[in-house]
Amino acid sequence: MIAPSHQDLVVKGSLNPGAIQFNNEILLLLRVAEGCPETKDEIAVPVYHFEHGKGALTVLHLKKDDPELCRKDTRAVIHQGQEYVSTISHLRLARSTDGVHFSVDEKPFLTPQNSSEEFGVEDARIVQIDDCYYINYTAVSRDSYGTSLLKTKNFVDLEYLGMIFSAPNKDVCIFPEKINGKYFALHRPYNHDFGKSSIWIAESPDLIHWGKHRCLIRPAHNQWESEKIGGGAPPIKTAHGWLEVYHGKTLIDGKDFYSLMVLLLDLDDPSKVIYRGEKPILVPEKDYETNGFVPNVVFLNGMVLRNEEDLYLYYSACDETSCLAECKLEDLIPI
Amino acid sequence: MIAPSHQDLVVKGSLNPGAIQFNNEILLLLRVAEGCPETKDEIAVPVYHFEHGKGALTVLHLKKDDPELCRKDTRAVIHQGQEYVSTISHLRLARSTDGVHFSVDEKPFLTPQNSSEEFGVEDARIVQIDDCYYINYTAVSRDSYGTSLLKTKNFVDLEYLGMIFSAPNKDVCIFPEKINGKYFALHRPYNHDFGKSSIWIAESPDLIHWGKHRCLIRPAHNQWESEKIGGGAPPIKTAHGWLEVYHGKTLIDGKDFYSLMVLLLDLDDPSKVIYRGEKPILVPEKDYETNGFVPNVVFLNGMVLRNEEDLYLYYSACDETSCLAECKLEDLIPI
Repeated sequence: MIAPSHQDLVVKGSLNPGAIQFNNEILLLLRVAEGCPETKDEIAVPVYHFEHGKGALTVLHLKKDDPELCRKDTRAVIHQGQEYVSTISHLRLARSTDGVHFSVDEKPFLTPQNSSEEFGVEDARIVQIDDCYYINYTAVSRDSYGTSLLKTKNFVDLEYLGMIFSAPNKDVCIFPEKINGKYFALHRPYNHDFGKSSIWIAESPDLIHWGKHRCLIRPAHNQWESEKIGGGAPPIKTAHGWLEVYHGKTLIDGKDFYSLMVLLLDLDDPSKVIYRGEKPILVPEKDYETNGFVPNVVFLNGMVLRNEEDLYLYYSACDETSCLAECKLEDLIPI
Repeated sequence: MIAPSHQDLVVKGSLNPGAIQFNNEILLLLRVAEGCPETKDEIAVPVYHFEHGKGALTVLHLKKDDPELCRKDTRAVIHQGQEYVSTISHLRLARSTDGVHFSVDEKPFLTPQNSSEEFGVEDARIVQIDDCYYINYTAVSRDSYGTSLLKTKNFVDLEYLGMIFSAPNKDVCIFPEKINGKYFALHRPYNHDFGKSSIWIAESPDLIHWGKHRCLIRPAHNQWESEKIGGGAPPIKTAHGWLEVYHGKTLIDGKDFYSLMVLLLDLDDPSKVIYRGEKPILVPEKDYETNGFVPNVVFLNGMVLRNEEDLYLYYSACDETSCLAECKLEDLIPI
């Protein structure tokens, strides 16, 4: 059981873990989604305030028969013209020595710190560059969702480096080293009106400022990704190229269906695609992957390579739970 | 009359000019929108190809009774699953010695150069920094719309610096000098789902890579901007602060209505708002502002300050024509 971050909240799920080897442990950075219990007459929503620097949480109780209350969808609640969300996520560390059995910290690792995070912090990716760890995550607010960056050496002291990809943008995967003098990242802008949401690539001199944005691959490459695609975990360097596991969304019988795909990018120029899988490496099959909060979703943003050959894929099922799949690195690379 | 860029195209409008003082001239960089004449049986769409480096234009003729033809809206055409647009814009220079009478170049200044611009280049903003001129413009493609950057010293030789704000993002206004060691820009991400499209601010060490994205001001400050807002021309430095003229969109009788508003930002920290106008400085009133391709639109992305006090506002009416309004700088600043 994961302890809620506040006495008035209940944990709805712990999902989409970032993952990294740190000292002798594997760390997962879980997205812990929390909401408030609902009574017969009342709903309650968590509200973060940032008037005095750091974020402070209060709970707003609303009568269901309040004429100024409007429940927009399963998550959004409007009261007196102000938008709230019924569920807000924070990031929480879990630790393991074997990569399989984890203990979850009692307290959050990161809760919303400023107004760009008022509706939560979600979906961490962790990458080690030299002796620092960089954590990018989705910052959600009334201004949509963007990607922000933290730097740490010890997973205790955190330096906030700002929003690196402005809204609407998520699924950011930073490469773990400079390539020809520049840092690179995959990112996923929302595609408004024209086509479908695709994976882009960008460059940076310092990890904080990004430019040279280009669309790298579009969806509809096969039947598993007819609707949209997005980056998964930070790419892993292999002898054959940068290995990226990404997600594809398609519709089956009119319902969302997410699976995991493989992409291989050129070591010297990651804007060049060497290989793109025709079939998924993981599709929702097991009961916990097909039945849950959002059925038929497998989603990955953390991978750890152990002993240079064993790949641990920490993925999420049904936007609700965190799971582990294991394979040999070479099994994903068809070259 | 503006000459079309290709024998099979007709000019539909010349709008949204960027503006700058260059040597003894005022230059406007017009967005020239072009399409193909339609016959009783046939429509035609312009198509840019980029197989051999630079863009090459061909015209695709389509029978109106072709069962594989689908006209999605007034602009988008789908044929055999591929999306086209009926109108594509390029950028064209116009030159004037008095700022009032302009001669338009015969040839385009910039046509689409890569696949991120396949559906056109639009809405240039020009800013002088030291002895260079930077031109940012909207790059439109099936991957949505982003903002790209050119550098020039003479408006002849152009250096492409890549896409600086990834899709969906437009209305980028670069400040004309470094502030506390960093370049700044206003930008306008599309707000997906959560709130309304707002004006953001970002920082850069080099004008090419951008970070520290923050929402600066949101719409709904008054009845003129209930739907969305976006940056206008690059900010002008005044004794009282950075002067920005931006646009606000509202709905009047259910129809779009765009007007121009004033914003004043702190000279040392442009993320601080000093003043924001309650009333527009320009609303659609004249016949050419209320009747045209898109009625009731005034839109600005170019301003020139002359003699340190006369402000020339080059704005567009009805997404169709380019107009000039003049005022004293001090009349816009209520301090």
